[in-house]
Amino acid sequence: MSTPNREVLDRADLAALPQRFRAMLVNSLSGFKSANVVGTASEDGREACCIVSSVVHLGSNPALMGVVFRPPGADSHNYHNLAANGRFTLSHISAGFYKQAHQTSARFEASVSEFEAVGLTPHWHMDAAGERFQAPALAESPVRMGLSVSEDLLLPNGCRFVIGTVEWVDFDASSQSKDGFLDLASTETVCIGGLDAYHTAARLSRLSYAKVGKALEVQEDFNVGWD
Amino acid sequence: MSTPNREVLDRADLAALPQRFRAMLVNSLSGFKSANVVGTASEDGREACCIVSSVVHLGSNPALMGVVFRPPGADSHNYHNLAANGRFTLSHISAGFYKQAHQTSARFEASVSEFEAVGLTPHWHMDAAGERFQAPALAESPVRMGLSVSEDLLLPNGCRFVIGTVEWVDFDASSQSKDGFLDLASTETVCIGGLDAYHTAARLSRLSYAKVGKALEVQEDFNVGWD
Repeated sequence: MSTPNREVLDRADLAALPQRFRAMLVNSLSGFKSANVVGTASEDGREACCIVSSVVHLGSNPALMGVVFRPPGADSHNYHNLAANGRFTLSHISAGFYKQAHQTSARFEASVSEFEAVGLTPHWHMDAAGERFQAPALAESPVRMGLSVSEDLLLPNGCRFVIGTVEWVDFDASSQSKDGFLDLASTETVCIGGLDAYHTAARLSRLSYAKVGKALEVQEDFNVGWD
Repeated sequence: MSTPNREVLDRADLAALPQRFRAMLVNSLSGFKSANVVGTASEDGREACCIVSSVVHLGSNPALMGVVFRPPGADSHNYHNLAANGRFTLSHISAGFYKQAHQTSARFEASVSEFEAVGLTPHWHMDAAGERFQAPALAESPVRMGLSVSEDLLLPNGCRFVIGTVEWVDFDASSQSKDGFLDLASTETVCIGGLDAYHTAARLSRLSYAKVGKALEVQEDFNVGWD
């Protein structure tokens, strides 16, 4: 079935692959993944965090993010925390601390703070009234946000799809262009290929809003923004 | 509220922003997005395709992908096609054709093939029995797959979250390392920042499976793979 330089596999071929090989391959198929740290706190105030590669944009008004969590087990501290108190944070991972962020995926005991264990710094957001948001973000992160859980959907394969409403955002102002866009190449935000391959981004261009019969405008300077 | 070089916005601040500015900002918050073309065919055989930046990995065995679609309207040809015949494809967008892929987001009439309109080539997958998969993929793409719809969930904000089971995959064999991983930097697969910023990926490293109390191993050569 395979033409030269192409490998073609059907569903039965995929099912017959060794488990680890299949996980490496299938995790490469969705394209590049976003790289965030989810931060939470337990009811008794213990902080926890873990890398997630499954954050997806769901809407801008209100600002909504979706996050896929594996089928929760006893050691899914972050999922249990956000399910209990309804709050979590997302913080972009940048090139300066991607190794520490990766290490948060190890199975630490619930009594251990992953922040302390890997050497990352909790950032506790305060609102205008001086009230503390009940989940820590990452001090090191160029773009971070706090969210409240608006839906917690059980997917057919046991995964959870958590939808969060953005309650606050906090970002490196120098990365923003005049039209609102954040240049994630300038912040050295990373993206993930497969399960474990980290990359920074190399700019191609920004393209104008697509219209039928109209040629695209191309913007190579990411600082500028559209009029 | 903002410290030097940080901009801090709460939910009310976000709601008060001009619509386009808010969309540009909030679309930047999830981190880098995957870049795929979804391909479909109508019941009477008309092909359609559109760029999507919302594909997320859901599972490896069986291989499952999730795709968020905006609240479907009359001109959401691809969503209506896949809801009707239960088949769609996903094809990675690479640097060689990202402008054509972006242009597929224009509002073409249902009678128009986006493939023809923007200059991309449909690839019709044939199974081992010589039967044609009922949705076209992209001939130009380094990594493409056909999926059957396993769930079509309505999200609270009107978006659809479509879960697809991978029926076949077809990829550039030279991008695969011995452990199954596909090097998406080598295929020049792009990632998207915000609504319209395209990037290729610059490799940092692959990191070993994280374990408590164990130092990470670092692999700079993406062709090698883990033992």
